[in-house]
Amino acid sequence: MNYHGGDIYKYDKEIIDFSSNINPFGVPQSLKVSLMDNLEVFSRYPDISYKKVRDAIAKYLCIGDINHIVVGNGAVEIIYKVVSASNVNEIIIPCPTFSEYKRAAKVNNKPYKEIVAFREDGSLNLNSIYENITSNSLMVLCNPNNPTGTLLDPALITSLAQRLKEKESWLLVDESFIEFSQQYPLTSVVPKLIQHPNIIVIRAATKFFGIPGVRLGYGVVGDSRLAASVKEKMEPWSVNSLAELAGLQVFKDKQYIAKSRLWVEEERKYLFNQLKLIKGVAVVPSEANFLLLKSKKLTAFQIKENLLKKKILIRVPQGFTGLTKYHFRVAVKDREANQQLIKALKEVLM
Amino acid sequence: MNYHGGDIYKYDKEIIDFSSNINPFGVPQSLKVSLMDNLEVFSRYPDISYKKVRDAIAKYLCIGDINHIVVGNGAVEIIYKVVSASNVNEIIIPCPTFSEYKRAAKVNNKPYKEIVAFREDGSLNLNSIYENITSNSLMVLCNPNNPTGTLLDPALITSLAQRLKEKESWLLVDESFIEFSQQYPLTSVVPKLIQHPNIIVIRAATKFFGIPGVRLGYGVVGDSRLAASVKEKMEPWSVNSLAELAGLQVFKDKQYIAKSRLWVEEERKYLFNQLKLIKGVAVVPSEANFLLLKSKKLTAFQIKENLLKKKILIRVPQGFTGLTKYHFRVAVKDREANQQLIKALKEVLM
Repeated sequence: MNYHGGDIYKYDKEIIDFSSNINPFGVPQSLKVSLMDNLEVFSRYPDISYKKVRDAIAKYLCIGDINHIVVGNGAVEIIYKVVSASNVNEIIIPCPTFSEYKRAAKVNNKPYKEIVAFREDGSLNLNSIYENITSNSLMVLCNPNNPTGTLLDPALITSLAQRLKEKESWLLVDESFIEFSQQYPLTSVVPKLIQHPNIIVIRAATKFFGIPGVRLGYGVVGDSRLAASVKEKMEPWSVNSLAELAGLQVFKDKQYIAKSRLWVEEERKYLFNQLKLIKGVAVVPSEANFLLLKSKKLTAFQIKENLLKKKILIRVPQGFTGLTKYHFRVAVKDREANQQLIKALKEVLM
Repeated sequence: MNYHGGDIYKYDKEIIDFSSNINPFGVPQSLKVSLMDNLEVFSRYPDISYKKVRDAIAKYLCIGDINHIVVGNGAVEIIYKVVSASNVNEIIIPCPTFSEYKRAAKVNNKPYKEIVAFREDGSLNLNSIYENITSNSLMVLCNPNNPTGTLLDPALITSLAQRLKEKESWLLVDESFIEFSQQYPLTSVVPKLIQHPNIIVIRAATKFFGIPGVRLGYGVVGDSRLAASVKEKMEPWSVNSLAELAGLQVFKDKQYIAKSRLWVEEERKYLFNQLKLIKGVAVVPSEANFLLLKSKKLTAFQIKENLLKKKILIRVPQGFTGLTKYHFRVAVKDREANQQLIKALKEVLM
């Protein structure tokens, strides 16, 4: 599986990793403390119903009924299980986007259709979305979208859900990066699920909270019957005791949340503005903690090779519908790292 | 999902839990120390190929080629993915046994056949096994078997594999409890996979090493093509960084391994002999860290209710093919707990 970020394991340890999108504040102190105090939790099975974690998520998202909440081994497990549980004719995937939607369709032997729907400037081509709606299907929208960083308005998403509903179809909204958007929580469609129960929202605890190694994803399934089917598909105990512990800690860590949001806002703006000044590349406006760039002359692979000599690792997406060999993605990191990236990129491109 | 052990979460904290089979030594000290030193690993994705962990497993099992090794979120994830990847006509399940084999077949929409093959005394009825072999099928044998504790001889397993091979069928051997068997490692079929590549062995790091909350399962797939297909089915990063860290630590913790084996041998013998003296129950000889009992008069549910009043929780299997309402299972625990169980059970039954 070489189409993911995080292939840092192949490289030496001094490399600055811009290939995966990780909160530079690292593991929340609150989780570390809780972990030290609870090392014996690993000697027990997690609660197979994950009641307390789902309670904590319900509180974080202001949801009244925890029966709509599912937890899983990262957002990906929930993506796979929703694709498996939804008894649809096809999966519709607006591209370019996260590769796991397609893989989830393949692994589950579901037909899928990719639509190139995000334009070069990151904006969504709504016509192509609407034209491609079919009955009894599941459309997957990543919001903000990975790798373009595009944020879609909740009102736009709910009208789309309405149109899908008329065709007895579902809308899966992957909000794994939503806390990084400037106007969060106003940007989330979670509060819209009561009116639009054909929406399923997927979130990841681990991206925003700097703990991708922990693997805690969660979903809010508007439709009760679908929620039950998704749970039926889950493998037991797929969320381990560490992720369970994290679920009880991180959502209430208001300090971590606040400082992460301040950081991303400031550094994303800084990095975007600096990258815009570099002549050899175009950069797409983003509401996530990464930026998509398109080189004008060198291929992304050439840039990657040259940056590696300067101990910087970027992400060159391969085999993504809607991306060219000139596209690459960089994470937003702390100021010092961001400056090193800008300097190195200038040297490579100028 | 109420058919699993570990439903301790429903009860108060003073209860002694005999319902799930957990090594009483708890989390290995070596893992705790390593964890304290490596809290920042959670801020990175695990290595998506899990190379180092698979290297450690290869060393532990004396396997030359790590391409045959897969890791997963507990043994269950590997069971699910093997059932999904093996392109067979049916799954054959000798019963009574672990409920997840049947569930894996159901979730993957594979036809399955349950055979009552373990007798009341725990012995295997080989005739019924051989009679039920069909072509292009996957048979699942748990060894030692959960919940009977029956250990099958490697020679018997390899002849069965040979017969299955003649029908182009597979044999999945679940060795999740194998380290608890007295003659381990002689009891494992892992060294037989070179001669019998239609065998798949599944193991759990977490049962023997007292860390069921960590979720680290692994498998050895004799056939290279099947190994690749199983990997194709895996969801990315399903083993989190804690489980990854555990995989690098526990297999080399020779002290923990030695003391756990001494404990289980002594306490299993003690508990078995004491339970045999109780007139109201029959107890099945076991090579695992649990014992299956059959009550002669009270139902298992009645016994459970009465023991709960004495703050002891046992496991009453429900809906298991081949078990009656008189069957229940208890874990082997430390001496003090075992004595409390014996005392309480005597009071309830006499």
